[in-house]
Amino acid sequence: MDTTLLVGLLAAFFTTFAFAPQSIKTLKTRNTEGISITMYIMFLTGVISWVVYGFLRSDIAVLIANVITFFLAAPVLLITLINYKRGKK
Amino acid sequence: MDTTLLVGLLAAFFTTFAFAPQSIKTLKTRNTEGISITMYIMFLTGVISWVVYGFLRSDIAVLIANVITFFLAAPVLLITLINYKRGKK
Repeated sequence: MDTTLLVGLLAAFFTTFAFAPQSIKTLKTRNTEGISITMYIMFLTGVISWVVYGFLRSDIAVLIANVITFFLAAPVLLITLINYKRGKK
Repeated sequence: MDTTLLVGLLAAFFTTFAFAPQSIKTLKTRNTEGISITMYIMFLTGVISWVVYGFLRSDIAVLIANVITFFLAAPVLLITLINYKRGKK
Protein backbone atom coordinates (compact mmCIF):
# COMPACT_ATOMS: atom_id res chain seq x y z
CA MET A 1 0.00 0.00 0.00
CA ASP A 2 1.47 3.37 -0.89
CA THR A 3 2.15 6.01 1.76
CA THR A 4 -0.39 8.50 0.44
CA LEU A 5 -3.27 6.03 0.67
CA LEU A 6 -2.11 4.98 4.14
CA VAL A 7 -2.18 8.61 5.34
CA GLY A 8 -5.64 9.01 3.80
CA LEU A 9 -6.99 5.89 5.48
CA LEU A 10 -5.53 7.02 8.83
CA ALA A 11 -7.19 10.41 8.34
CA ALA A 12 -10.47 8.70 7.46
CA PHE A 13 -10.21 6.46 10.51
CA PHE A 14 -9.56 9.31 12.96
CA THR A 15 -12.13 11.84 11.77
CA THR A 16 -14.85 9.20 11.30
CA PHE A 17 -14.35 7.50 14.65
CA ALA A 18 -14.08 10.82 16.47
CA PHE A 19 -17.54 11.59 15.12
CA ALA A 20 -19.06 8.14 15.77
CA PRO A 21 -19.62 8.17 19.59
CA GLN A 22 -21.71 11.36 19.51
CA SER A 23 -23.79 9.94 16.70
CA ILE A 24 -24.28 6.54 18.37
CA LYS A 25 -25.19 8.26 21.66
CA THR A 26 -27.87 10.32 19.90
CA LEU A 27 -29.25 7.21 18.18
CA LYS A 28 -29.43 5.36 21.51
CA THR A 29 -30.88 8.13 23.68
CA ARG A 30 -32.94 9.79 20.91
CA ASN A 31 -32.09 13.03 22.69
CA THR A 32 -31.52 15.57 19.93
CA GLU A 33 -31.50 18.67 22.14
CA GLY A 34 -28.81 21.06 21.05
CA ILE A 35 -28.65 19.69 17.51
CA SER A 36 -29.17 22.39 14.92
CA ILE A 37 -31.24 21.10 11.98
CA THR A 38 -29.83 23.76 9.62
CA MET A 39 -26.25 22.87 10.53
CA TYR A 40 -26.95 19.15 10.17
CA ILE A 41 -28.51 19.59 6.73
CA MET A 42 -25.47 21.69 5.71
CA PHE A 43 -23.16 19.02 7.10
CA LEU A 44 -24.93 16.17 5.27
CA THR A 45 -24.96 18.17 2.02
CA GLY A 46 -21.21 18.52 2.49
CA VAL A 47 -20.75 14.82 3.23
CA ILE A 48 -22.73 13.84 0.10
CA SER A 49 -20.65 16.32 -1.94
CA TRP A 50 -17.47 14.69 -0.59
CA VAL A 51 -18.78 11.26 -1.67
CA VAL A 52 -19.37 12.61 -5.21
CA TYR A 53 -15.94 14.29 -5.14
CA GLY A 54 -14.24 11.09 -3.93
CA PHE A 55 -15.98 9.18 -6.72
CA LEU A 56 -14.97 11.73 -9.38
CA ARG A 57 -11.33 11.68 -8.22
CA SER A 58 -11.33 7.89 -7.56
CA ASP A 59 -10.22 8.75 -4.05
CA ILE A 60 -10.76 5.70 -1.83
CA ALA A 61 -9.95 7.49 1.46
CA VAL A 62 -12.36 10.38 0.85
CA LEU A 63 -15.02 7.90 -0.30
CA ILE A 64 -14.72 5.54 2.69
CA ALA A 65 -14.64 8.38 5.25
CA ASN A 66 -17.72 10.09 3.88
CA VAL A 67 -19.83 7.02 3.13
CA ILE A 68 -19.39 5.89 6.76
CA THR A 69 -20.03 9.43 8.04
CA PHE A 70 -23.17 9.61 5.92
CA PHE A 71 -24.58 6.44 7.52
CA LEU A 72 -23.72 7.80 10.98
CA ALA A 73 -25.14 11.27 10.38
CA ALA A 74 -28.25 10.61 8.27
CA PRO A 75 -30.18 8.72 11.02
CA VAL A 76 -29.31 11.50 13.50
CA LEU A 77 -30.86 14.07 11.18
CA LEU A 78 -33.91 11.83 10.73
CA ILE A 79 -34.45 11.48 14.49
CA THR A 80 -33.87 15.22 14.96
CA LEU A 81 -36.55 15.96 12.34
CA ILE A 82 -38.99 13.48 13.95
CA ASN A 83 -38.41 15.02 17.41
CA TYR A 84 -38.82 18.50 15.95
CA LYS A 85 -42.14 17.58 14.34
CA ARG A 86 -43.40 15.95 17.58
CA GLY A 87 -42.36 18.99 19.60
CA LYS A 88 -44.31 21.31 17.34
CA LYS A 89 -47.58 19.37 17.76
CA MET B 1 -12.87 25.75 -13.01
CA ASP B 2 -13.48 22.04 -13.61
CA THR B 3 -16.53 20.28 -12.19
CA THR B 4 -14.58 18.00 -9.86
CA LEU B 5 -12.84 20.92 -8.13
CA LEU B 6 -16.16 22.77 -7.88
CA VAL B 7 -17.80 19.76 -6.15
CA GLY B 8 -14.80 19.55 -3.81
CA LEU B 9 -14.96 23.22 -2.90
CA LEU B 10 -18.72 22.95 -2.29
CA ALA B 11 -18.08 19.93 -0.04
CA ALA B 12 -15.34 21.84 1.77
CA PHE B 13 -17.64 24.84 2.22
CA PHE B 14 -20.54 22.83 3.64
CA THR B 15 -18.68 20.56 6.07
CA THR B 16 -16.41 23.37 7.31
CA PHE B 17 -19.17 25.91 7.86
CA ALA B 18 -21.45 23.35 9.48
CA PHE B 19 -18.67 22.84 12.04
CA ALA B 20 -17.82 26.53 12.52
CA PRO B 21 -20.75 27.79 14.70
CA GLN B 22 -20.19 25.17 17.42
CA SER B 23 -16.51 25.99 17.47
CA ILE B 24 -17.06 29.78 17.55
CA LYS B 25 -19.65 29.37 20.33
CA THR B 26 -17.18 27.38 22.44
CA LEU B 27 -14.46 29.97 21.85
CA LYS B 28 -16.82 32.79 22.90
CA THR B 29 -18.41 31.15 25.96
CA ARG B 30 -15.33 29.12 26.97
CA ASN B 31 -17.86 26.50 28.07
CA THR B 32 -16.29 23.16 27.16
CA GLU B 33 -18.70 20.95 29.11
CA GLY B 34 -19.61 17.88 27.10
CA ILE B 35 -16.46 18.03 24.97
CA SER B 36 -14.50 14.78 25.09
CA ILE B 37 -10.74 15.47 25.11
CA THR B 38 -9.96 11.98 23.70
CA MET B 39 -12.41 12.46 20.82
CA TYR B 40 -11.08 15.94 20.09
CA ILE B 41 -7.46 14.74 20.00
CA MET B 42 -8.54 11.92 17.66
CA PHE B 43 -10.42 14.43 15.50
CA LEU B 44 -7.46 16.84 15.28
CA THR B 45 -5.08 13.95 14.49
CA GLY B 46 -7.46 13.09 11.65
CA VAL B 47 -7.64 16.68 10.44
CA ILE B 48 -3.83 16.99 10.40
CA SER B 49 -3.63 13.65 8.52
CA TRP B 50 -6.12 15.02 5.95
CA VAL B 51 -3.90 18.12 5.51
CA VAL B 52 -0.87 15.87 4.85
CA TYR B 53 -2.98 13.70 2.52
CA GLY B 54 -4.29 16.75 0.65
CA PHE B 55 -0.73 17.99 0.26
CA LEU B 56 0.54 14.60 -0.99
CA ARG B 57 -2.29 14.34 -3.54
CA SER B 58 -2.15 18.07 -4.44
CA ASP B 59 -5.83 18.16 -3.52
CA ILE B 60 -6.85 21.80 -3.04
CA ALA B 61 -10.36 21.00 -1.70
CA VAL B 62 -9.14 18.56 0.96
CA LEU B 63 -6.36 21.00 1.90
CA ILE B 64 -8.61 24.07 2.25
CA ALA B 65 -11.32 22.21 4.20
CA ASN B 66 -8.89 20.75 6.71
CA VAL B 67 -6.62 23.77 7.19
CA ILE B 68 -9.71 25.87 8.08
CA THR B 69 -11.09 23.08 10.31
CA PHE B 70 -7.72 22.84 12.05
CA PHE B 71 -7.77 26.54 12.94
CA LEU B 72 -11.36 26.19 14.19
CA ALA B 73 -10.77 23.02 16.21
CA ALA B 74 -7.28 23.54 17.67
CA PRO B 75 -8.27 26.52 19.92
CA VAL B 76 -11.29 24.55 21.17
CA LEU B 77 -9.01 21.70 22.25
CA LEU B 78 -6.66 24.21 23.89
CA ILE B 79 -9.48 25.81 25.91
CA THR B 80 -10.85 22.36 26.81
CA LEU B 81 -7.41 21.34 28.12
CA ILE B 82 -7.06 24.59 30.11
CA ASN B 83 -10.54 24.12 31.64
CA TYR B 84 -9.73 20.49 32.43
CA LYS B 85 -6.50 21.48 34.21
CA ARG B 86 -8.30 24.21 36.19
CA GLY B 87 -11.07 21.80 37.19
CA LYS B 88 -8.55 19.32 38.54
CA LYS B 89 -6.85 21.85 40.86
